[in-house]
Amino acid sequence: MNQRIAVFPGSFDPITVGHESVVRRALGMFDKIIIGIGQNAEKKYLFPIEKRKMFIEKIFENENKIEILVFKGLTVEFCRKNQIAYILRGLRTSADFEFERAIAQMNKTLLHNVDTVFLLTLPEHSFVSSTIVRELLRYKGDISHFVPKSIQNLL
Amino acid sequence: MNQRIAVFPGSFDPITVGHESVVRRALGMFDKIIIGIGQNAEKKYLFPIEKRKMFIEKIFENENKIEILVFKGLTVEFCRKNQIAYILRGLRTSADFEFERAIAQMNKTLLHNVDTVFLLTLPEHSFVSSTIVRELLRYKGDISHFVPKSIQNLL
Amino acid sequence: MNQRIAVFPGSFDPITVGHESVVRRALGMFDKIIIGIGQNAEKKYLFPIEKRKMFIEKIFENENKIEILVFKGLTVEFCRKNQIAYILRGLRTSADFEFERAIAQMNKTLLHNVDTVFLLTLPEHSFVSSTIVRELLRYKGDISHFVPKSIQNLL
Amino acid sequence: MNQRIAVFPGSFDPITVGHESVVRRALGMFDKIIIGIGQNAEKKYLFPIEKRKMFIEKIFENENKIEILVFKGLTVEFCRKNQIAYILRGLRTSADFEFERAIAQMNKTLLHNVDTVFLLTLPEHSFVSSTIVRELLRYKGDISHFVPKSIQNLL
Amino acid sequence: MNQRIAVFPGSFDPITVGHESVVRRALGMFDKIIIGIGQNAEKKYLFPIEKRKMFIEKIFENENKIEILVFKGLTVEFCRKNQIAYILRGLRTSADFEFERAIAQMNKTLLHNVDTVFLLTLPEHSFVSSTIVRELLRYKGDISHFVPKSIQNLL
Amino acid sequence: MNQRIAVFPGSFDPITVGHESVVRRALGMFDKIIIGIGQNAEKKYLFPIEKRKMFIEKIFENENKIEILVFKGLTVEFCRKNQIAYILRGLRTSADFEFERAIAQMNKTLLHNVDTVFLLTLPEHSFVSSTIVRELLRYKGDISHFVPKSIQNLL
Repeated sequence: MNQRIAVFPGSFDPITVGHESVVRRALGMFDKIIIGIGQNAEKKYLFPIEKRKMFIEKIFENENKIEILVFKGLTVEFCRKNQIAYILRGLRTSADFEFERAIAQMNKTLLHNVDTVFLLTLPEHSFVSSTIVRELLRYKGDISHFVPKSIQNLL
Repeated sequence: MNQRIAVFPGSFDPITVGHESVVRRALGMFDKIIIGIGQNAEKKYLFPIEKRKMFIEKIFENENKIEILVFKGLTVEFCRKNQIAYILRGLRTSADFEFERAIAQMNKTLLHNVDTVFLLTLPEHSFVSSTIVRELLRYKGDISHFVPKSIQNLL
Repeated sequence: MNQRIAVFPGSFDPITVGHESVVRRALGMFDKIIIGIGQNAEKKYLFPIEKRKMFIEKIFENENKIEILVFKGLTVEFCRKNQIAYILRGLRTSADFEFERAIAQMNKTLLHNVDTVFLLTLPEHSFVSSTIVRELLRYKGDISHFVPKSIQNLL
Repeated sequence: MNQRIAVFPGSFDPITVGHESVVRRALGMFDKIIIGIGQNAEKKYLFPIEKRKMFIEKIFENENKIEILVFKGLTVEFCRKNQIAYILRGLRTSADFEFERAIAQMNKTLLHNVDTVFLLTLPEHSFVSSTIVRELLRYKGDISHFVPKSIQNLL
Repeated sequence: MNQRIAVFPGSFDPITVGHESVVRRALGMFDKIIIGIGQNAEKKYLFPIEKRKMFIEKIFENENKIEILVFKGLTVEFCRKNQIAYILRGLRTSADFEFERAIAQMNKTLLHNVDTVFLLTLPEHSFVSSTIVRELLRYKGDISHFVPKSIQNLL
Repeated sequence: MNQRIAVFPGSFDPITVGHESVVRRALGMFDKIIIGIGQNAEKKYLFPIEKRKMFIEKIFENENKIEILVFKGLTVEFCRKNQIAYILRGLRTSADFEFERAIAQMNKTLLHNVDTVFLLTLPEHSFVSSTIVRELLRYKGDISHFVPKSIQNLL
């Protein structure tokens, strides 16, 4: 396993300021962070996969340590294939923590030499989620505190 | 800040299998992990600082990416002086999470370019703590599942 | 903003003894509490909006500090339009708390001079929810401990 | 009420190693444990009721204190009809706990002389759930750590 | 191990209505419940061990399935010596749960064939604790909702 | 009971930006908020009662709806004597919530017509506490983000 690569998996429907901040603050630890956009045929997304990917590319266009890939299936399979040793995730609340712990422990059971690394979201991002952004978009609410500036006019 | 160095701060009174596992699994991400043993004049320890340090040295004697230092005062001051960009911590439960989040956010407020990185303890370590080890030692209970093998005969 | 008015928003599908108790105990703090019944075209309700409203009117028919309104869209828009400074919510459990905190902080980000005020449900109401009432109604269970007396024969 | 009988209710879609372990460890307390498979016409299951039942029969085929029954409707009605005094449930995390507490307190309100008895899942089962098993099955992941051996080739 | 005996360990400084209710509701499951009063030389108690024991004897004087014993040291040693297969504990909140889970998992690691059995406190007891009773006694507050009737005049 | 008065009880050793913010945001709901400084002979404080009181007076010197009182004993006794119907408290985390709920429910049991009203701390204050301020003062850390400006030079 390449211990200098991490994957940051998610739906990113759409990416938020919380996601962006976690990735930027983790960059120091790794040679490369792969943002892995999960694509699940049975799930409904507000934004199609091309748009979700484009938003992320836009935000990190000047960041050469970041790669953006789409994947289907289990995150651990993606790790195995790409020899990725660390999964990166953000934590906001203890509800997040309980959920993420179960996923991380399942992943470690399925692929023993992978570990999940957590960064905290910043306090001002502790209530930001893609769900809230989609809710705001539906009611034409103000998304400017929730979505990175460079893509706000694209949503 | 040197982004390839992390500090793993704690009292380590004494170090447990949980601590050991978190450090070993984090080694891939960093060029060096400094195990920072906090020494607080107002706190009572079961083991004196020399012993706490010796236990850790014993456990990691063949691990050249690990350094062991004693420090007093705030963790962020230790980071500032040593140009350390990441603080490493283990998470067991959501009670841990709530406590660690407050400390980590305080630290980031005091020193903006430091981030705390969390690894989960393994499921079989989720109830291991130095407090429980001390309790077992007091009642001559069996510590073999709680403390690294190489130091069990030293306690 | 009128600081003597609060809105108590919810689906109220149907209103429970928990809702009723929170409103009655909050009445002392405010000149008026508006019970805001959220109506969301994409959501399925067991009771149509007319019934949900009628139940609440029945319960508070002798309470002249209470007004009942139906609203669509974001709660903060409702607050802005009606110059409401406080959103009232009940808290049962720490799971509630985590959920409510995210919503409340989002609301404050969207409308800076609005605050959410929480009362605890009474211990004997800590497990009461509209979801449980609907479940009981489906299986013809006994709802008498969950729904205010004055509407029990109307469900 | 017969105080030596407990019901272990669930969907068991499918049964996991976590469920199995809770039942086996509770057997000492009771003369009989009835595994009650909830069947809800409005819910979609991955495995039909016959298969869910057959899996459980296979696992406990040599255990004469266990009975397996299918039931519809409220768990308390099942208890009343069968004069069962205790409901048995497993607890993994504090998220589980909050959810289970509400259900248990509702049940006690509906049927005063029934109590819910909780056992902890083992640490190595703390992230095991039927949901995760179904997810793994969908992506042809390895279920061997999640499902009892005797039924792994039947899934 | 005798699977029909449980120990209910605690400091009982003093016993509360919450403790009493948990024991009474668990009596159906067991042939005997031993109330084990922990006595720790390094801990300060408000009531001496004789009084703590007398309060409990008074409350359960007509209950022949209950035995009251004082013990020192680890609960698991008490279980081993007395061949007790189950430890009984009450759960009030998710904070309790996190704490109790760590203790229970430690106990199971130390003595494999012991399990901890949890009952919920009643909703109206969810905030009752010996700590609160001692606080009320210090300030001459009203303890009548917190302590069993038969001992209220003895405190 | 005077329903337009609330008490905000605490040790305030020392008052933080979190406390200040909760009081200011609650002012709209009440005619008067009494900041009740608890004084407990058995507790050790970093700042003597005169200083703790002076800090608060300084911060709110232009706020005529605020009164500052020192009290001993139970908060509910203070409420009863002063005919106060609401107790005001801030909530930061779910750990806070569990703790505060027990206290609030005890208070309501002791004095039926008192209710506790909660406001959330702002996200940027979610990790601020008097404990952290005292810790920072001990190590000469930077308290400027934790303590109201007007008293920073007085600590």
